[in-house]
Order: sequence, then C-alpha cells, then structure tokens
Amino acid sequence: MSDQRVLRPTPISGFPEWLPEIRSVEQRWLDHIRAGFERYGFASVETPSVENLDVLMAKGETSQEVYTLQRLQADAADDTDARLGLHFDLTVPFARYVAQYFNELVFPFKRYQIQRVWRGERPQEGRYREFTQCDIDVINVDNVPLHFDAELPRIVHEILSGLDIPAWTININNRKVLQGFYEGLGIDDPLAVIRAVDKLHKIGDEGVRAILADTAEGRLGLAEEQISACLELARIKGADTSVIDQVKKLGVTSELLSEGLDELGFVLDSLSDLPRGSVVADLSIARGLDYYTGTVYEASFDDDPGYGSICAGGRYEDLAGQFIKRKLPGVGISIGLTRIFAKLVAEGRITAGRTCPTDVMVVVPSAERRDEALRTAALLRGRGFNTEVFHQAAKLGKQIQYASKKGVPFVWFPPFEEGGKHEVKDLGTGEQTEADPTTWTPRPASA
Amino acid sequence: MSDQRVLRPTPISGFPEWLPEIRSVEQRWLDHIRAGFERYGFASVETPSVENLDVLMAKGETSQEVYTLQRLQADAADDTDARLGLHFDLTVPFARYVAQYFNELVFPFKRYQIQRVWRGERPQEGRYREFTQCDIDVINVDNVPLHFDAELPRIVHEILSGLDIPAWTININNRKVLQGFYEGLGIDDPLAVIRAVDKLHKIGDEGVRAILADTAEGRLGLAEEQISACLELARIKGADTSVIDQVKKLGVTSELLSEGLDELGFVLDSLSDLPRGSVVADLSIARGLDYYTGTVYEASFDDDPGYGSICAGGRYEDLAGQFIKRKLPGVGISIGLTRIFAKLVAEGRITAGRTCPTDVMVVVPSAERRDEALRTAALLRGRGFNTEVFHQAAKLGKQIQYASKKGVPFVWFPPFEEGGKHEVKDLGTGEQTEADPTTWTPRPASA
Repeated sequence: MSDQRVLRPTPISGFPEWLPEIRSVEQRWLDHIRAGFERYGFASVETPSVENLDVLMAKGETSQEVYTLQRLQADAADDTDARLGLHFDLTVPFARYVAQYFNELVFPFKRYQIQRVWRGERPQEGRYREFTQCDIDVINVDNVPLHFDAELPRIVHEILSGLDIPAWTININNRKVLQGFYEGLGIDDPLAVIRAVDKLHKIGDEGVRAILADTAEGRLGLAEEQISACLELARIKGADTSVIDQVKKLGVTSELLSEGLDELGFVLDSLSDLPRGSVVADLSIARGLDYYTGTVYEASFDDDPGYGSICAGGRYEDLAGQFIKRKLPGVGISIGLTRIFAKLVAEGRITAGRTCPTDVMVVVPSAERRDEALRTAALLRGRGFNTEVFHQAAKLGKQIQYASKKGVPFVWFPPFEEGGKHEVKDLGTGEQTEADPTTWTPRPASA
Repeated sequence: MSDQRVLRPTPISGFPEWLPEIRSVEQRWLDHIRAGFERYGFASVETPSVENLDVLMAKGETSQEVYTLQRLQADAADDTDARLGLHFDLTVPFARYVAQYFNELVFPFKRYQIQRVWRGERPQEGRYREFTQCDIDVINVDNVPLHFDAELPRIVHEILSGLDIPAWTININNRKVLQGFYEGLGIDDPLAVIRAVDKLHKIGDEGVRAILADTAEGRLGLAEEQISACLELARIKGADTSVIDQVKKLGVTSELLSEGLDELGFVLDSLSDLPRGSVVADLSIARGLDYYTGTVYEASFDDDPGYGSICAGGRYEDLAGQFIKRKLPGVGISIGLTRIFAKLVAEGRITAGRTCPTDVMVVVPSAERRDEALRTAALLRGRGFNTEVFHQAAKLGKQIQYASKKGVPFVWFPPFEEGGKHEVKDLGTGEQTEADPTTWTPRPASA
C-alpha cells in the first residue's frame, strides 16, 4: 500500500470531528446531559439511524433534506434498500417507535434519545449535515398533564447551568395564547398570523406588518388595529406572571386565550424558584411548526440571538397519528448539542480537556522489573485510577516526557530494586514523594 | 394527520432496536466497555459516520458493502454529495484521522472508538446492516512495542469478564509463526497457505488439504509432507508457552519462525496470570486479512464457535500508508458489541434491566401540596437519586401502581399536611417507614 499515491485526507464540510482534547469535553457534556435526563427518570431509547422512507415522509415536510441510502454495488434489479433514509430528527423515529411498541410501554412514557441526525443541506454557519441532538419527550394516551410542560424547561435549565457556556435564556410561550388572541381579534386564519409573527426576529415589525396587511387574494389583509394588537402582543416579555396581566390589559378575550394564559401562568409559577431572567415568557416566540398546540420553548444565546435556537420544543396534540389510531399527545424539548458545541469550538471558547483519560502513568524501571510496573498499575486501576504502563524500559526522562506531553497528571515510580519504595511525581507541581499504591490518593487540587 | 391512512410501523431487517428494559442493559454494557478502555488510558475518538468514497475505497476491498448517500431531492446537476459513503468499519476512518491530525497527536497514540458502522449486506444470522463496534488501537511512528500486543487481550479479557455472557475464549496466534513455518517448509506463497488455513474451521482438514494439494496452474501444489506439516501446526493449541515447544518439535526452522515464536511467547508469558484457558494460543487462527503481520486475536463463544468471532484484531505494519508518507504500524482489537448483544437478546439470554432509571418516585399528596413534592424530589436528586414526581394529584393507589409498573424501587410520601412526616415505601419488600429526605439511604439489598 505504501507505494501507492497518497490520498490527502480532508475534512468533509458539515460533518464535524474533534481532536481528542476537544472530544473529551464533548464526552463530558454528553455524560452531563444524560445524567440530567436520568435524574428526572427519563429512559434511554435509541433507534436505528435509518427509517423506511415512507415513515420519514409521512408528514411530507422536509423531503429535500433527507439522505437516502444506496448500496454502492447494487444491481439494477435490486431495490430492496432503495426505500431507506437517514433520520433527520429524533421525533419521527420516536413516533414510529411508540406506535410499534405501544403495547409494551408504560404510559406516560418519558424517554430521552441522544443520537446523531442527518440533513442533506448546503452547509452554512450553524448548520451541519451530521449533528447530535439530545431529546426528551413525555407522551401519554389521550392527555398529558401540564406538570410536564413545567418539568422540561427545569431539566434543560439544570443541564445548561452545569455547562461552561455563554449566557442563555429559555423563552416560553403558549400557542393557545397567540391563537386565542388572534381569534379574539376576529382573525380567520390565526395559524397564518403565527407563521408571520414567527419571522419577527428576522424581518422586524415592518416586515411582519407588511405580511399581515397584504390584501392580495388569499392573504390576511388585516385591519390596522388588528395588526397593531398583534405586534403589541409580540412585544410582551417578562420573567414572571405579570406578563399575564399585560396580555389581559390589551383587552382582547376568547376562551382559548384564557386557557392559554392559565397554562402559561402555571408553567411560570412552577419555575418561579429558578434564577430570575433565566426562564422568560416571550409572547413573540411562535415556533413556526404547525404541530405545536400549547406551550412552546426556544432557548438562545444572549450575546448572539441571531444564531437561532440552541434548544427548542413544545407541546403537540398527536405524536404518532400517522402510525397508530390512538391519540398520543406529548411535550418535548431538544438540546442542539452540536449546534452549541461546534459554535463554541469554532469561536475558541471551549477550553481543551485532557488528551487522554490517564490519571497515572507507571514507569518501567527496567525490562526485568516490568512485572513490578504491571502489578503496580493493576493495583492502581483496582482503586479506580485510569492507569497506563509505559510501553518499554526506556530512559526515565523519555518516559516522563511522554506523560507530560499527554497531560497525564501523575507519574508513578515502582521500586527500582527488590524491597525499595514506591514514589509518585505530581507533574503539575513537580513534587515527588514516597507513596503506597494500596493507599495513595492524589491531593484534590492537582488531580 | 389522524384522518390519514395509518402506516403500520415495521422493523427493518438488519437494523436492531430495543425496548427500554433491554436498551438499559446495552447502555450498561457500553459504559462498562468504555470504562474498561479508559482504565488503561485509551482516549476517545469519534469520526463522522461518512467518509469520502475514495477514502473508503482506498484499500479496494469491501466495495459491495458500502452504503452511499444521496440527497432525496438532489437535482441531476448537483453531485457534491455523490462521493460520500457510510463507514463500514472504524479502522479506515481512524487511519484517515491519524493522517489528517498527524502533527497534533502524541505517539504512541492509544485511542478507543465506539460507534455504529454500516454494511449493505443481505441480512443473515449474526450479520447486521447497522451495528456498534468497540475498537481500541495503538499506533506509533515506525514501531510499536510488543508490550501492547499483550495489553490488548488483557483489556478485552477484563471487559468480557465483567459482562454476564456465556463462556468465551480469546485465541491468539502470530502470523510470523505461520509464515515463517511455511517458508521453512520451502513454500513459495505462504500467504496463500494462510488464506487456506483460515478456512480450516469451515471446511475441515480435507478441504484445506485439497486446496494445498491442488496442482492446477497458479495453485499451491504442495507435497504431502508439506501439507501434513501445515495441518500438524494448525492442530497445536494450548494455554501456555508449552505450545512454543510443540511447534519447535515439528523440526521446521526459519528466522521469521523464531521471531514469531519469541513474540508469541512474550505475549503468552505476559498473560500467564489470567485464569487458565481464557486466553489460548491456537496455531490454526490465521485471520484471512492480508494486512495482519504479527500477533492476531480472535475470540468466540465456547458453546457456539460456529457463530464466528465476537472480538478480533491483530498487528499491522502500516495503518495509513494510503494517506500519509509515514510508516505507522499498530495493533488493535475490536469488540463486536452488537454481534454479542443481539445474539444473546435473540436467544433470550439477556436479563431485562430497568425500564427507567428512576430510583424514587415522589407522590403528590394533593394539588395544594405539589410544591412539597417538588421540593422533596429536588432534595433527593441533589443527593444522587434519580427521582420522578408523579404528574398529578391522583389517587394514591394509582400513583403507586404507576411506579410499580415501571419497576421503580421506592415510592416516597411527602407529609400530607404541614408539619407531618416523610415516609418511604420499598416496593420490593412492601415495607413502609418514616424517612428524612436529607439523610435517607436505601438498604443496599433492595436498591
């Protein structure tokens, strides 16, 4: 092989990959997120990376983003794999999963799912073709208590608070408030208004006003007072239930609006113990997707709101209607791990972690005393320390240098002769002391 | 949506998926394997699921098994994604990774990689189209100390010993022994003999004999004594270095054979403290792949050797010659997680785990006392217990039944009135006692 031409390896745009010292941070994040989900009793589910194409297309939405699979050497007559596509989110596979195993699951079913997803998009900033999503959903038969609408942002808050990332805010709204308010204004197509208001942060007041005022055939053609009221509603924002009063002061009423305000109030009340300002009611948050029907969530970075959402979700009426004749409402939220992590890596805001998990490297004093080094390492491993043995009886300086280059915090010297003492060197402080492998513990400061 | 036809969800052949109670076991296995790799200082690497097709095909071997990606709605002119394929193993991506980041890695580089891989094969027993591999490799510039040839089977031994699986054996051999022995017999094409002997367990002595004796143009056409010697070598098997003597007694000599026997002896000696019979030298193990050059490994189930290898690997001379003009030899071994796990699931030999990670479910005594339940849960979570709060103030029996159906071990009763006592019920024993959420610890037996 080595006499062939050399094929220069190049990164593939949209498919992120990390050096070990960055990967170790990502791994820590993944562990942290998983522990956060499990702390609230969510169960792990993983689904295959692929689904049948008709499952992926059941909602007919994101067709252009799906990657399909093709066997490289498939013959023309063989189309058995032609109908497989990589999943583009974790919601569709979860819906299929719940329908498939409906009789074997306990409801309300609380699951988390941390997996890669794929989208055949043109790569651009903040968009990846392969990325990891961390989803939690609670689904139930017929109805899902509001308790969960409040629990999900609490979990996300707890998780994000434990990550070393720039300031963020979780914004909450309720689609019933928007829809009920628009209905109260006498608007016939409230969903069209929601879709317009969803663009507010991109196109501004004037842009939204233009869409709402457009009198062309099939457009909304709202009156000036209606438009002003819609925009006033979208300006309401606040950290506590005073936002409810602000909405009421606009003087619009409808049954759905009251219901939405009660729900929003319940969620805000339930989260009132969290640090003020970290979870905020923002009546401009609409989440364009049609399937949300109540609470909606959207978190973003305070210093870069234009980057878009880093977590998002909401309540939906019917998860799996395309697969099963049972009404399965739910509420879910997704943390965009790669969206957050890759951005911070690109901006140099991730502090590199260890290049390897090794706590202690044991030196090999001489070929004859290699067994002593192996025994010492086994002792240390048994006590919970990740331990390497240097791979040969090289000069001590070379052995220590290897540990130092890899960032291993401690180097262990087994006795150099029968009956000698063990010693350990803290590469952080340079200090070297006698130590017993059966009792040694590193001082917390340098470990 | 719910008025559309219902699309019956069906499993996709070759793409395994588990219920939560099986997934929790798989998750435990993955954690166990990862901890085992990290205990020896191996660093985590993950690569994208795809590689450029010319990278995947650089060795030109497994072309028919590659899945390529295609954007569902790609227009004819747009072929930018046409050259991407899902990786079919973790070795090719690792080779590309090492070449790409050569200047940023510390050598010898010890990495583990636990990821899904894909092969566009016809599904059959023990073959999957998507499966998880757990690989460790050590690579270095120019040479890799023999130390690692002994370390890798030790790590795999430690990991497999900690899994509740049927009895297995790790078989070891050395390609230099085979090649050197065949050379010593005066055979011109020892690699062809290796490929024939590799089929021994499938086609038996007579089958191998027929291949070796074949005198057709381009075939081996070995003499009877040569064939007998080859088969005699393949029958040698043993748990200690006495196998070295058995090989020597066959009276064949060559420089390469001596070198191979020294290496094999070193590895066996280094592992002599492991339980006898768990690691065995088996001179019939050849590993058909041409790139192995020294130590080779192959583990299988004792009660079903025909199922094939559950772990495999070996030493190679040149990992990344197709990508970089540096000689990067290495040694690696791979645990076929899905091959092991899915077989045991299919055979009903995996004991289902918990359906959810919840340790304690806190009941909601009444809507008014929901906050008390939430505070209690927060206390328990802060102390490391995965804790759910029941989602509404339902009848107690209903709340307890939910916990019981999900297999939650403890149900917690916060005070039903101001100033009352907390109680906790062990659902395993039925015992209910007073408890303080700031100090309670479950008795180990039922936790």
